[in-house]
Amino acid sequence: MGGDHGPPVAVAGAAEATRRLSGRPVRFLLHGDEARIEAELRRFEALRPLVEIRHTAQIISGEEKPAQALRRGKGSSLWNAVEAIRQGEAAAAVSGGNTGALMAISKLILRMIGSGLERPAIVASWPTARGVTALLDVGANIDCAASQLVEFAIMGDAFYRAVHAADPAYRPTVGVLNVGSEEMKGHEEVREANRLLRAGGFDFDYRGFVEGNDIAGGAVDVIVTDGFTGNIALKTGEGLARFFAASLKQSLTGDPLSMAGAVLAKGGLDRLRARLTPPGGGPLLGLNGTVVKSHGGTDASGFADAIKIAYDLAASRYIEEIGRNIERLSVALAPDATNNVVSEAKSAE
Amino acid sequence: MGGDHGPPVAVAGAAEATRRLSGRPVRFLLHGDEARIEAELRRFEALRPLVEIRHTAQIISGEEKPAQALRRGKGSSLWNAVEAIRQGEAAAAVSGGNTGALMAISKLILRMIGSGLERPAIVASWPTARGVTALLDVGANIDCAASQLVEFAIMGDAFYRAVHAADPAYRPTVGVLNVGSEEMKGHEEVREANRLLRAGGFDFDYRGFVEGNDIAGGAVDVIVTDGFTGNIALKTGEGLARFFAASLKQSLTGDPLSMAGAVLAKGGLDRLRARLTPPGGGPLLGLNGTVVKSHGGTDASGFADAIKIAYDLAASRYIEEIGRNIERLSVALAPDATNNVVSEAKSAE
Repeated sequence: MGGDHGPPVAVAGAAEATRRLSGRPVRFLLHGDEARIEAELRRFEALRPLVEIRHTAQIISGEEKPAQALRRGKGSSLWNAVEAIRQGEAAAAVSGGNTGALMAISKLILRMIGSGLERPAIVASWPTARGVTALLDVGANIDCAASQLVEFAIMGDAFYRAVHAADPAYRPTVGVLNVGSEEMKGHEEVREANRLLRAGGFDFDYRGFVEGNDIAGGAVDVIVTDGFTGNIALKTGEGLARFFAASLKQSLTGDPLSMAGAVLAKGGLDRLRARLTPPGGGPLLGLNGTVVKSHGGTDASGFADAIKIAYDLAASRYIEEIGRNIERLSVALAPDATNNVVSEAKSAE
Repeated sequence: MGGDHGPPVAVAGAAEATRRLSGRPVRFLLHGDEARIEAELRRFEALRPLVEIRHTAQIISGEEKPAQALRRGKGSSLWNAVEAIRQGEAAAAVSGGNTGALMAISKLILRMIGSGLERPAIVASWPTARGVTALLDVGANIDCAASQLVEFAIMGDAFYRAVHAADPAYRPTVGVLNVGSEEMKGHEEVREANRLLRAGGFDFDYRGFVEGNDIAGGAVDVIVTDGFTGNIALKTGEGLARFFAASLKQSLTGDPLSMAGAVLAKGGLDRLRARLTPPGGGPLLGLNGTVVKSHGGTDASGFADAIKIAYDLAASRYIEEIGRNIERLSVALAPDATNNVVSEAKSAE
């Protein structure tokens, strides 16, 4: 068990996730130092019967490069958690450890779906005025061809349906992040992705270009972008949220009247905090298996979010759905694709 | 006078700016419909002696493309405001009109500084925990070579010193926006820009890569990025600020106790709003002349911000400073530049 906080957060998170699943069956393989895990489990009696500990003293540090982790990581808690998926012992893995190592090891052990995907995409779920927007990729794929942006749309759609939609038959709305909504805006990759998505006949409801303000505005369910822009948008938002919280606190402690007001308004301010807090984890999408990264600095509640996301994904057929839509993309990208695309689009209607 | 609100906002903004300049000399040429401007001026007696109206009935609409505006815009209020700079009648132009048209017309009439700059860059000033961060480019230049990113650093430095620094000898700190702070992170353009900035011997204090959370965190004074990423970061922040304000309002009206608290805390909440509101305008940088775009939807206070920025820029030597640093960049980019760069860097120390 890695992450900035290790076993205390992961074990408390598992206990919290069990409560949230309220009776739905769940079991945990806990990979890490047995003595430390046992010590934490004493605080959660109800969790004990659901848990099996897989001892390892080996860990991958936060500083290790992905290539090092691939060479030296075998037998570590992170490696063993992913390997348990391939062995059929676990339906999903959740880790708070080194993101680069988790991606490299997951790709090596589980492989990518289809042949078109080069790296897993990381998806972030943003709270919005209307619910949640899923934004991807937020980190792994820096330079993205148009076809990769289409793959992100395919993966984001399947993720959204499995995790955020109340009705599994819901058709998520999807947009491509750009600097304006007109067709001629932006660079070649987003314009080509827009053409492919309009022509493709995919399962989701493609809505064209969206802008940065549409992320928190909730204009569509899924927003796709390259990992460079997505990472910067995500971190810009995280920085701004921290600045808001600090400014709010400072404003409400600046004079006695405001302080008294803040005490009275505690209920409202607590609701605000709950509303603005994003889930504590996001999946690596595009793998033949469910791997969720919980944020390094998260608490037990955030780790429980990550477990819940992993559970919902593993209980869905999202990997099959991604595979099916990626087939359609291959058809659309084939040299003589025009006719095929048209008939695909018609048969999908 | 264009912009979403036209003469009412611009005239009230000029009156407010005059108050803020508290006695420093200022005069206005107001370009637009004389009757409408006269009607607004009746509300601001003190402004009347500082104003000369330049009547034109011709306007450029918000929908007009830059190429159309160049062909048909001559004689419009926007065109005349920029032309007055070239004629030496005005030290700066402020416009709330069509951004693309303003950029194209400004470039045509005023020309870019030096030969390396292709388009003006738009700079946004973000409120942060420590003051203001200047972010550029936020819209005009979609695909940016490394040398353009360096030019943004040069322009952002001169802007920051003229507008945001209390001491004109202050050396602003500058960072390049990236997905991590390590040298090998990001795409080729940001890595090359990082090398050029480290070697260049410019006037500012270059600090290397920064991340999205550093924008609101205020890690450096000036953050440079390509116009695609910058536009998305800016609009992501704007969307989040709106969502935050709406959520705060909703949270504080959700129950009677919170409502009472919000009434008591009105002073603190007003301080919060003032603190989170960015200036209502940003300059187009890289031109041989000072042009400031006020945000289309801004109010009189925001328009006054734009006028104040234009005033501070015009009162500084920022255009000369940009020219001098761009010379240094040309030296650094010359094929046999290595020795020159080293001696430049030494002589700057």
